[in-house]
Amino acid sequence: MRDGPSPATEGTETFVELARTGGARVERIASRAVSGGAWYEQGWAEFVLLVAGGARLAFADGTEHALSPGDWVHLPAGCRHRVAWTDPTAETIWLAFHLPAGPG
Amino acid sequence: MRDGPSPATEGTETFVELARTGGARVERIASRAVSGGAWYEQGWAEFVLLVAGGARLAFADGTEHALSPGDWVHLPAGCRHRVAWTDPTAETIWLAFHLPAGPG
Repeated sequence: MRDGPSPATEGTETFVELARTGGARVERIASRAVSGGAWYEQGWAEFVLLVAGGARLAFADGTEHALSPGDWVHLPAGCRHRVAWTDPTAETIWLAFHLPAGPG
Repeated sequence: MRDGPSPATEGTETFVELARTGGARVERIASRAVSGGAWYEQGWAEFVLLVAGGARLAFADGTEHALSPGDWVHLPAGCRHRVAWTDPTAETIWLAFHLPAGPG
């Protein structure tokens, strides 16, 4: 249940929506050899888990956070972040859980 | 970011809430040597990913589904299921994403 489309070319990412209800979404992301991806700043929280490969997330304050398979990060709403790097030798697979905006 | 409390005794599970907004919840579950757990039937969809260990989920129609690290399952609202088995030799770690009820 982890197979899916692969990114065609280096430095790109492929997104597939796996589930969506009640304003929440589950997304599979496949990355290959990303280096300095686009910045994201979302009005909702995201919970991201690295399934395979390796990656580093960068934050607006200049810090970076390395992720190995099984590691996860909670990105609160408004947390500016981007993919700084993914393993150039293997495909990196993520699951991203987009939580609806608003209180619990 | 994957550490957390371990189940104290065999056959038990430990739940920790990692994030909650807008009616969605992310939960870390640690299982040890579960064999024939309780049945669940929820009014909302759940998306469950196996991070470490090994497990089998059972469904109301008698089928079972084996999960290895990195495997995930989408459990639609009303899908009756239970943990039939988790690896007795290692701790099994899950991430469960509870999506809010309702349309997308």
